[in-house]
Amino acid sequence: MLKCSEVNVTIRKAKKEDMIQVFKLIKDLAEFEKLENQIKINAEVLMKDGFDTDNPAFTCLVAELSDGHIMGYALYYTAYSTWLGKSVFLEDLYIQPAYRKIGIGKQLFMAVAKIAHESASKRLDFHVLSWNPAGDFYKSLGAENLTTSEKWQLFRLNEDALNKMFT
Amino acid sequence: MLKCSEVNVTIRKAKKEDMIQVFKLIKDLAEFEKLENQIKINAEVLMKDGFDTDNPAFTCLVAELSDGHIMGYALYYTAYSTWLGKSVFLEDLYIQPAYRKIGIGKQLFMAVAKIAHESASKRLDFHVLSWNPAGDFYKSLGAENLTTSEKWQLFRLNEDALNKMFT
Repeated sequence: MLKCSEVNVTIRKAKKEDMIQVFKLIKDLAEFEKLENQIKINAEVLMKDGFDTDNPAFTCLVAELSDGHIMGYALYYTAYSTWLGKSVFLEDLYIQPAYRKIGIGKQLFMAVAKIAHESASKRLDFHVLSWNPAGDFYKSLGAENLTTSEKWQLFRLNEDALNKMFT
Repeated sequence: MLKCSEVNVTIRKAKKEDMIQVFKLIKDLAEFEKLENQIKINAEVLMKDGFDTDNPAFTCLVAELSDGHIMGYALYYTAYSTWLGKSVFLEDLYIQPAYRKIGIGKQLFMAVAKIAHESASKRLDFHVLSWNPAGDFYKSLGAENLTTSEKWQLFRLNEDALNKMFT
Protein backbone atom coordinates (compact mmCIF):
# COMPACT_ATOMS: atom_id res chain seq x y z
CA MET A 1 0.00 0.00 0.00
CA LEU A 2 1.12 3.54 -0.68
CA LYS A 3 2.07 5.78 2.20
CA CYS A 4 1.10 9.41 2.30
CA SER A 5 4.76 10.49 2.14
CA GLU A 6 5.15 8.62 -1.14
CA VAL A 7 2.42 10.56 -2.89
CA ASN A 8 2.73 14.21 -3.82
CA VAL A 9 -0.82 15.43 -4.26
CA THR A 10 -2.22 18.80 -5.21
CA ILE A 11 -5.84 19.67 -4.48
CA ARG A 12 -7.05 22.38 -6.83
CA LYS A 13 -10.10 23.63 -8.70
CA ALA A 14 -10.64 21.70 -11.91
CA LYS A 15 -10.05 23.25 -15.31
CA LYS A 16 -12.19 22.55 -18.33
CA GLU A 17 -9.69 20.10 -19.84
CA ASP A 18 -9.62 18.08 -16.59
CA MET A 19 -13.16 16.90 -17.34
CA ILE A 20 -11.73 14.20 -19.64
CA GLN A 21 -9.93 12.57 -16.68
CA VAL A 22 -12.78 13.33 -14.25
CA PHE A 23 -15.31 11.68 -16.55
CA LYS A 24 -13.15 8.52 -16.58
CA LEU A 25 -13.33 8.50 -12.77
CA ILE A 26 -17.12 8.97 -12.91
CA LYS A 27 -17.29 5.91 -15.19
CA ASP A 28 -14.91 3.94 -12.92
CA LEU A 29 -17.22 4.53 -9.99
CA ALA A 30 -20.34 3.59 -11.98
CA GLU A 31 -18.68 0.43 -13.35
CA PHE A 32 -17.69 -0.61 -9.84
CA GLU A 33 -21.35 -0.22 -8.87
CA LYS A 34 -22.38 -2.06 -12.09
CA LEU A 35 -24.48 0.96 -13.03
CA GLU A 36 -22.45 2.36 -15.94
CA ASN A 37 -25.46 1.99 -18.27
CA GLN A 38 -27.14 4.78 -16.29
CA ILE A 39 -24.58 7.37 -17.41
CA LYS A 40 -26.25 9.58 -19.98
CA ILE A 41 -23.69 12.40 -20.27
CA ASN A 42 -20.03 12.64 -21.33
CA ALA A 43 -16.95 14.79 -20.79
CA GLU A 44 -18.20 17.37 -23.30
CA VAL A 45 -21.42 17.91 -21.31
CA LEU A 46 -19.36 18.40 -18.14
CA MET A 47 -17.22 20.97 -19.98
CA LYS A 48 -20.29 22.82 -21.24
CA ASP A 49 -22.22 22.78 -17.94
CA GLY A 50 -19.27 23.59 -15.69
CA PHE A 51 -17.10 25.86 -17.81
CA ASP A 52 -18.54 27.13 -21.13
CA THR A 53 -21.17 29.25 -19.43
CA ASP A 54 -21.60 32.38 -17.32
CA ASN A 55 -23.66 30.27 -14.94
CA PRO A 56 -21.72 27.06 -14.09
CA ALA A 57 -23.98 24.25 -12.85
CA PHE A 58 -21.25 22.81 -10.59
CA THR A 59 -17.73 23.28 -9.27
CA CYS A 60 -15.18 20.48 -9.27
CA LEU A 61 -12.03 20.01 -7.21
CA VAL A 62 -9.42 17.49 -8.30
CA ALA A 63 -6.61 15.60 -6.54
CA GLU A 64 -3.66 15.52 -8.93
CA LEU A 65 -0.28 13.77 -8.82
CA SER A 66 2.88 15.61 -9.85
CA ASP A 67 2.78 13.83 -13.23
CA GLY A 68 -0.67 15.31 -13.98
CA HIS A 69 -2.65 12.16 -13.24
CA ILE A 70 -5.96 13.00 -11.56
CA MET A 71 -6.93 10.19 -9.18
CA GLY A 72 -9.71 11.82 -7.22
CA TYR A 73 -12.37 14.50 -7.50
CA ALA A 74 -15.10 16.21 -5.52
CA LEU A 75 -18.01 17.82 -7.34
CA TYR A 76 -20.45 20.18 -5.64
CA TYR A 77 -23.14 22.67 -6.59
CA THR A 78 -25.09 25.52 -5.05
CA ALA A 79 -28.30 24.32 -3.43
CA TYR A 80 -30.90 26.60 -1.84
CA SER A 81 -32.38 26.57 1.64
CA THR A 82 -35.47 28.68 2.36
CA TRP A 83 -34.06 29.21 5.86
CA LEU A 84 -30.40 29.94 5.07
CA GLY A 85 -30.19 30.88 1.40
CA LYS A 86 -27.48 29.54 -0.89
CA SER A 87 -25.74 26.46 0.47
CA VAL A 88 -23.32 23.81 -0.72
CA PHE A 89 -24.34 20.30 -1.79
CA LEU A 90 -21.54 17.78 -2.32
CA GLU A 91 -22.68 15.44 -5.08
CA ASP A 92 -19.63 13.17 -5.53
CA LEU A 93 -16.34 12.48 -3.79
CA TYR A 94 -14.25 9.71 -5.31
CA ILE A 95 -10.66 8.46 -5.01
CA GLN A 96 -9.24 5.66 -7.15
CA PRO A 97 -8.81 2.49 -5.05
CA ALA A 98 -4.98 2.47 -5.30
CA TYR A 99 -4.83 5.90 -3.63
CA ARG A 100 -7.19 5.35 -0.71
CA LYS A 101 -6.48 5.31 3.04
CA ILE A 102 -3.64 7.82 2.83
CA GLY A 103 -5.64 10.92 3.59
CA ILE A 104 -6.40 12.22 0.10
CA GLY A 105 -10.17 11.79 0.50
CA LYS A 106 -9.97 13.75 3.74
CA GLN A 107 -8.00 16.54 2.03
CA LEU A 108 -10.62 16.76 -0.73
CA PHE A 109 -13.51 16.70 1.74
CA MET A 110 -11.89 19.35 3.95
CA ALA A 111 -11.37 21.57 0.91
CA VAL A 112 -15.11 21.41 0.13
CA ALA A 113 -16.01 21.93 3.82
CA LYS A 114 -13.79 25.05 3.89
CA ILE A 115 -15.66 26.45 0.88
CA ALA A 116 -18.96 25.76 2.69
CA HIS A 117 -17.59 27.39 5.86
CA GLU A 118 -16.69 30.52 3.90
CA SER A 119 -20.14 30.69 2.26
CA ALA A 120 -22.99 32.76 3.67
CA SER A 121 -25.01 29.75 4.82
CA LYS A 122 -22.19 27.78 6.46
CA ARG A 123 -23.81 24.48 5.60
CA LEU A 124 -22.66 21.39 3.71
CA ASP A 125 -25.11 18.63 2.78
CA PHE A 126 -24.43 15.31 1.08
CA HIS A 127 -25.85 11.81 0.70
CA VAL A 128 -24.06 8.71 2.02
CA LEU A 129 -25.02 5.06 1.51
CA SER A 130 -25.86 3.51 4.88
CA TRP A 131 -23.27 0.73 4.40
CA ASN A 132 -20.46 3.06 3.33
CA PRO A 133 -17.77 3.16 6.06
CA ALA A 134 -17.11 6.81 5.12
CA GLY A 135 -20.25 7.66 7.13
CA ASP A 136 -18.28 7.13 10.36
CA PHE A 137 -15.52 9.43 9.10
CA TYR A 138 -18.04 12.19 8.34
CA LYS A 139 -19.64 11.76 11.76
CA SER A 140 -16.20 12.04 13.40
CA LEU A 141 -15.96 15.51 11.82
CA GLY A 142 -19.29 16.51 13.37
CA ALA A 143 -21.65 15.67 10.50
CA GLU A 144 -25.17 14.74 11.50
CA ASN A 145 -27.06 11.88 9.85
CA LEU A 146 -30.40 13.66 9.28
CA THR A 147 -32.06 10.47 8.06
CA THR A 148 -31.49 9.01 11.52
CA SER A 149 -32.02 12.13 13.63
CA GLU A 150 -34.84 13.91 11.77
CA LYS A 151 -36.15 11.06 9.57
CA TRP A 152 -35.49 12.72 6.22
CA GLN A 153 -35.73 10.34 3.26
CA LEU A 154 -34.63 10.88 -0.33
CA PHE A 155 -37.38 10.47 -2.94
CA ARG A 156 -36.98 10.43 -6.71
CA LEU A 157 -39.20 10.56 -9.77
CA ASN A 158 -36.99 9.08 -12.49
CA GLU A 159 -37.44 9.29 -16.26
CA ASP A 160 -39.83 6.31 -16.43
CA ALA A 161 -42.05 7.71 -13.68
CA LEU A 162 -42.12 11.19 -15.22
CA ASN A 163 -42.89 9.76 -18.66
CA LYS A 164 -45.83 7.84 -17.21
CA MET A 165 -47.16 11.01 -15.57
CA PHE A 166 -47.14 13.02 -18.78
CA THR A 167 -47.95 10.60 -21.58
CA MET B 1 -63.84 22.25 4.83
CA LEU B 2 -63.42 23.96 1.47
CA LYS B 3 -64.29 22.09 -1.67
CA CYS B 4 -62.19 22.36 -4.79
CA SER B 5 -65.04 24.00 -6.70
CA GLU B 6 -65.17 26.80 -4.11
CA VAL B 7 -61.55 27.80 -4.66
CA ASN B 8 -60.33 29.47 -7.84
CA VAL B 9 -56.58 28.87 -7.85
CA THR B 10 -53.91 29.92 -10.30
CA ILE B 11 -50.53 28.15 -10.34
CA ARG B 12 -47.86 30.43 -11.80
CA LYS B 13 -44.19 31.32 -11.58
CA ALA B 14 -43.53 33.70 -8.72
CA LYS B 15 -42.64 37.33 -9.28
CA LYS B 16 -40.15 39.22 -7.18
CA GLU B 17 -42.84 41.00 -5.16
CA ASP B 18 -44.47 37.64 -4.28
CA MET B 19 -41.49 36.88 -2.03
CA ILE B 20 -43.12 38.95 0.75
CA GLN B 21 -46.07 36.55 0.87
CA VAL B 22 -43.90 33.47 0.22
CA PHE B 23 -41.59 34.38 3.09
CA LYS B 24 -44.62 34.54 5.42
CA LEU B 25 -45.48 30.98 4.35
CA ILE B 26 -41.87 29.88 4.98
CA LYS B 27 -42.18 31.33 8.50
CA ASP B 28 -45.60 29.68 9.01
CA LEU B 29 -44.10 26.30 8.22
CA ALA B 30 -41.11 26.86 10.50
CA GLU B 31 -43.33 28.08 13.36
CA PHE B 32 -45.51 25.00 13.00
CA GLU B 33 -42.33 22.91 13.35
CA LYS B 34 -41.21 25.16 16.26
CA LEU B 35 -38.02 25.89 14.35
CA GLU B 36 -38.59 29.52 13.38
CA ASN B 37 -35.39 30.55 15.21
CA GLN B 38 -33.43 28.69 12.51
CA ILE B 39 -34.53 31.12 9.78
CA LYS B 40 -31.57 33.34 8.95
CA ILE B 41 -32.81 35.03 5.77
CA ASN B 42 -35.73 37.31 4.89
CA ALA B 43 -37.90 38.30 1.93
CA GLU B 44 -35.21 40.69 0.66
CA VAL B 45 -32.66 37.84 0.42
CA LEU B 46 -35.18 35.74 -1.52
CA MET B 47 -35.72 38.68 -3.89
CA LYS B 48 -31.99 39.13 -4.40
CA ASP B 49 -31.14 35.42 -4.83
CA GLY B 50 -34.10 34.53 -7.03
CA PHE B 51 -34.71 37.69 -9.07
CA ASP B 52 -32.09 40.47 -8.85
CA THR B 53 -29.42 38.43 -10.59
CA ASP B 54 -28.54 36.95 -13.98
CA ASN B 55 -28.03 33.64 -12.18
CA PRO B 56 -31.11 32.90 -10.02
CA ALA B 57 -30.41 30.43 -7.22
CA PHE B 58 -33.96 29.04 -7.30
CA THR B 59 -37.31 29.14 -9.06
CA CYS B 60 -40.58 29.46 -7.17
CA LEU B 61 -44.12 28.57 -8.20
CA VAL B 62 -47.06 29.98 -6.26
CA ALA B 63 -50.71 28.99 -5.80
CA GLU B 64 -52.75 32.18 -5.80
CA LEU B 65 -56.43 32.91 -5.13
CA SER B 66 -58.36 35.31 -7.35
CA ASP B 67 -57.99 38.02 -4.69
CA GLY B 68 -54.19 37.83 -4.90
CA HIS B 69 -53.70 35.83 -1.71
CA ILE B 70 -50.85 33.30 -2.08
CA MET B 71 -51.60 30.24 0.04
CA GLY B 72 -49.05 27.80 -1.29
CA TYR B 73 -45.67 27.64 -2.95
CA ALA B 74 -43.13 25.22 -4.39
CA LEU B 75 -39.47 26.19 -4.55
CA TYR B 76 -36.90 24.25 -6.56
CA TYR B 77 -33.37 24.68 -7.85
CA THR B 78 -31.04 23.13 -10.41
CA ALA B 79 -28.99 20.31 -8.92
CA TYR B 80 -26.29 18.39 -10.79
CA SER B 81 -25.91 14.68 -11.40
CA THR B 82 -22.60 13.36 -12.74
CA TRP B 83 -24.62 10.74 -14.63
CA LEU B 84 -27.44 12.89 -16.04
CA GLY B 85 -26.31 16.50 -15.87
CA LYS B 86 -28.60 19.29 -14.68
CA SER B 87 -31.59 18.03 -12.71
CA VAL B 88 -34.37 19.46 -10.58
CA PHE B 89 -34.39 19.39 -6.77
CA LEU B 90 -37.66 20.35 -5.06
CA GLU B 91 -36.71 22.04 -1.78
CA ASP B 92 -40.12 23.07 -0.38
CA LEU B 93 -43.77 22.47 -1.13
CA TYR B 94 -46.22 24.07 1.28
CA ILE B 95 -49.95 24.77 1.38
CA GLN B 96 -51.64 26.68 4.21
CA PRO B 97 -53.69 24.30 6.38
CA ALA B 98 -57.07 25.86 5.43
CA TYR B 99 -56.47 25.04 1.74
CA ARG B 100 -55.31 21.43 2.03
CA LYS B 101 -56.96 18.24 0.77
CA ILE B 102 -58.59 19.91 -2.23
CA GLY B 103 -55.88 19.10 -4.77
CA ILE B 104 -53.83 22.30 -4.72
CA GLY B 105 -50.71 20.55 -3.44
CA LYS B 106 -51.06 18.01 -6.24
CA GLN B 107 -51.42 20.81 -8.82
CA LEU B 108 -48.25 22.48 -7.51
CA PHE B 109 -46.32 19.20 -7.41
CA MET B 110 -47.46 18.25 -10.93
CA ALA B 111 -46.34 21.65 -12.20
CA VAL B 112 -42.83 21.04 -10.83
CA ALA B 113 -42.81 17.46 -12.15
CA LYS B 114 -43.74 18.78 -15.61
CA ILE B 115 -40.77 21.15 -15.52
CA ALA B 116 -38.52 18.21 -14.54
CA HIS B 117 -40.03 16.09 -17.34
CA GLU B 118 -39.23 18.81 -19.88
CA SER B 119 -35.64 19.16 -18.63
CA ALA B 120 -32.74 17.26 -20.19
CA SER B 121 -32.27 14.94 -17.23
CA LYS B 122 -35.92 14.03 -16.65
CA ARG B 123 -35.39 13.60 -12.93
CA LEU B 124 -36.99 15.14 -9.85
CA ASP B 125 -35.50 14.60 -6.39
CA PHE B 126 -36.82 15.77 -3.02
CA HIS B 127 -36.66 14.93 0.68
CA VAL B 128 -39.70 13.74 2.66
CA LEU B 129 -39.97 13.16 6.41
CA SER B 130 -40.65 9.48 7.07
CA TRP B 131 -43.80 10.28 9.09
CA ASN B 132 -45.25 12.68 6.49
CA PRO B 133 -48.36 11.14 4.89
CA ALA B 134 -47.43 12.94 1.64
CA GLY B 135 -44.86 10.17 1.11
CA ASP B 136 -47.66 7.80 0.11
CA PHE B 137 -49.00 10.34 -2.38
CA TYR B 138 -45.57 10.70 -4.00
CA LYS B 139 -45.21 6.92 -4.20
CA SER B 140 -48.64 6.67 -5.86
CA LEU B 141 -47.23 8.87 -8.64
CA GLY B 142 -44.30 6.50 -9.12
CA ALA B 143 -41.70 8.16 -6.89
CA GLU B 144 -39.12 5.82 -5.37
CA ASN B 145 -37.98 6.12 -1.77
CA LEU B 146 -34.22 5.84 -2.34
CA THR B 147 -33.51 5.77 1.39
CA THR B 148 -35.44 2.50 1.56
CA SER B 149 -34.45 0.99 -1.79
CA GLU B 150 -30.80 2.06 -2.11
CA LYS B 151 -30.01 3.07 1.49
CA TRP B 152 -29.16 6.71 0.78
CA GLN B 153 -28.98 8.86 3.90
CA LEU B 154 -28.81 12.65 4.17
CA PHE B 155 -25.79 14.00 6.05
CA ARG B 156 -25.15 17.60 7.09
CA LEU B 157 -22.29 19.66 8.47
CA ASN B 158 -24.06 22.62 10.04
CA GLU B 159 -22.58 25.97 11.08
CA ASP B 160 -21.43 24.71 14.50
CA ALA B 161 -19.67 21.69 13.01
CA LEU B 162 -17.99 23.77 10.28
CA ASN B 163 -16.88 26.38 12.81
CA LYS B 164 -15.27 23.64 14.93
CA MET B 165 -13.42 22.29 11.90
CA PHE B 166 -11.89 25.65 10.99
CA THR B 167 -11.26 27.47 14.26
